[in-house]
Amino acid sequence: MAILQVTQRGAVTHLTMNAPERLNALSDEMLAALQSTLDQLAGDPDTRVITLSGSGKAFCAGHDLRQMTAMRQAPDGGAAAFKDLFDRCASVMARIQSMPQPVIAQVHGIATAAGCQLVATCDMAVAAEGTRFGVNGVNIGLFCSTPMVALSRNIPRKQAFEMLTTGRFIDATRAESLGLINRVVTAETLEAETAELAETVAAKLGAAVKIGKEAFYTQMSMPVAEAYAYTGEVMVQNMLRDDTAEGINAFLEKRDPDWEQ
Amino acid sequence: MAILQVTQRGAVTHLTMNAPERLNALSDEMLAALQSTLDQLAGDPDTRVITLSGSGKAFCAGHDLRQMTAMRQAPDGGAAAFKDLFDRCASVMARIQSMPQPVIAQVHGIATAAGCQLVATCDMAVAAEGTRFGVNGVNIGLFCSTPMVALSRNIPRKQAFEMLTTGRFIDATRAESLGLINRVVTAETLEAETAELAETVAAKLGAAVKIGKEAFYTQMSMPVAEAYAYTGEVMVQNMLRDDTAEGINAFLEKRDPDWEQ
Amino acid sequence: MAILQVTQRGAVTHLTMNAPERLNALSDEMLAALQSTLDQLAGDPDTRVITLSGSGKAFCAGHDLRQMTAMRQAPDGGAAAFKDLFDRCASVMARIQSMPQPVIAQVHGIATAAGCQLVATCDMAVAAEGTRFGVNGVNIGLFCSTPMVALSRNIPRKQAFEMLTTGRFIDATRAESLGLINRVVTAETLEAETAELAETVAAKLGAAVKIGKEAFYTQMSMPVAEAYAYTGEVMVQNMLRDDTAEGINAFLEKRDPDWEQ
Repeated sequence: MAILQVTQRGAVTHLTMNAPERLNALSDEMLAALQSTLDQLAGDPDTRVITLSGSGKAFCAGHDLRQMTAMRQAPDGGAAAFKDLFDRCASVMARIQSMPQPVIAQVHGIATAAGCQLVATCDMAVAAEGTRFGVNGVNIGLFCSTPMVALSRNIPRKQAFEMLTTGRFIDATRAESLGLINRVVTAETLEAETAELAETVAAKLGAAVKIGKEAFYTQMSMPVAEAYAYTGEVMVQNMLRDDTAEGINAFLEKRDPDWEQ
Repeated sequence: MAILQVTQRGAVTHLTMNAPERLNALSDEMLAALQSTLDQLAGDPDTRVITLSGSGKAFCAGHDLRQMTAMRQAPDGGAAAFKDLFDRCASVMARIQSMPQPVIAQVHGIATAAGCQLVATCDMAVAAEGTRFGVNGVNIGLFCSTPMVALSRNIPRKQAFEMLTTGRFIDATRAESLGLINRVVTAETLEAETAELAETVAAKLGAAVKIGKEAFYTQMSMPVAEAYAYTGEVMVQNMLRDDTAEGINAFLEKRDPDWEQ
Repeated sequence: MAILQVTQRGAVTHLTMNAPERLNALSDEMLAALQSTLDQLAGDPDTRVITLSGSGKAFCAGHDLRQMTAMRQAPDGGAAAFKDLFDRCASVMARIQSMPQPVIAQVHGIATAAGCQLVATCDMAVAAEGTRFGVNGVNIGLFCSTPMVALSRNIPRKQAFEMLTTGRFIDATRAESLGLINRVVTAETLEAETAELAETVAAKLGAAVKIGKEAFYTQMSMPVAEAYAYTGEVMVQNMLRDDTAEGINAFLEKRDPDWEQ
């Protein structure tokens, strides 16, 4: 079985992290599979939305501590290998946000450390009741400094600080109220609810979603005036598309747009 | 009837967007009226707070799609006209935040696309129960990239992404819990509650509110150390005012301040 | 009695602002005591967490308006003295966040103006039911521009604007839902609950908490790519520590870490 299973369901491509015996840890193999699969899907015209889940009991429990410990055998104590690992992990996170398609996390069980970072990094997230989220590296002396980058851009400051320094978990309801996930559903409906959200987005004009997702993250870090200058230009390019003209005409004529995609 | 009605109520100036048959769309005429009226009010010593509402069934339904479609007839397909439109719209949004007076949106019915941007841009917002908010341009193939600038600076990231890519509406209660508006009231009390909030702010020392509003947006985009250096200087200038000295003296002497404004 | 009482409780150092007759105002003396005590504790290996409370009826009511009014007697009307005061206050706020140890506010009664800023600045905060928070300087003509720097980095934008321009207080429950504090507890359990949170953090590997706190504020103002490059390096240094290796080994071997700290 592949460590990352890829299933096409109409315009939605579903990825399943498949290393349940290691709680889908972000091992070297898992990171490589995520990177190469996402790189490939970025150019796939048939994929308009991507969903991501984990097989077995957990969504993802973070880095693979056994692999990391083995890296200590190098003459430099692992320094170069650790740096390379965090670079590869950050590259996967950046790839998720630079994908032209939205990526939705379908979360159950636990999402901890870099697994929680993965949830925070995805564009949207749906979680089953009972899911627990944590950045609990502090409990073993390894502060979740990289997961913090994503987490602290999703939830308020004091709540992020508490999770990071206490190592305590929050449940799905709390995660929703803090903004870490979009919604909580029953375990039985997790797959269906995630698919429904994915299909809703997949039914939109793909070009508009692609334009919008790129603009979303680009404008976020800009001062307001610069963000308006940039997004104004984005809107002009969006308006000049033939399929957008068709969408607007259809709306004005109270009919469905004739979009081939 | 003017497309933007101006009503003075004591120190509060109330603006009503008045194109109900077009759901108060931000047409060329509406944008021009908002810009010129706000420019004029910025220098009006009798206006200490501004409230903004829409007549008819909606607060504001965004850009005027018929006007935009007509712009396509130009030799460049509308490129220059679209750019000019988004520039004028961004200018109105910037003007709202650069006004010396707080601007409060009084929202009912629907606030969609650039209408939702208007709510997000106002300093505060009160909405009636049943109001629906959306950035639903994606439904017609035009991603709400400019409204996103304001929206993503008001509500958490994943919730903004969901609204933008699904095109779905949220209700007033959800808008309040996400931070898009300050409070939800009944339709019957919307005007009175907005007026009460406006009058509360209008009763403060106008100079202090003006100083504070400018500093609010200026410091927001600064690193913390720079923000403290800047606001420290703002506080010094505020302290050196005679009317502030009177306010502090009155407080220490347990009496009302003698402010002429 | 010292204006700032220092009590060591195991690895937690508790500070009590002790000027109850002035509602623990941030007077020259209080600021000096906070600065020097924090500077000293920053190098204290026995302090792993700091908690901060106020004696008497309030946590802290902000600046000392009598002292500030007296500064007006200077030939420059107080300009230099005011600037110096706000510099000293900002220095204490910066010191709290640059401490190697987490600082937790234990809040009761009222936390207003610079007192509310103090709560917003602490890494975490626990408050008793009934506590009221406000940035109410606008009521006396002195807009809370410096408290705004901390407040607007804790809670959503429109809610911050409302507190600042209306001068109205919010209660502890509202403060918790907005993100200004971590939790609300009964007055009877405030001390115990704050101590419990402090001891939870104090039980972690101190080096990891120190690494993480510094990284938390440093990465926050960086663009995402830069934040990942920086925190990746932080993680490498964290991994290379012997005590972190012990923590990870202990976890993999399902035993408690043997940390001497």
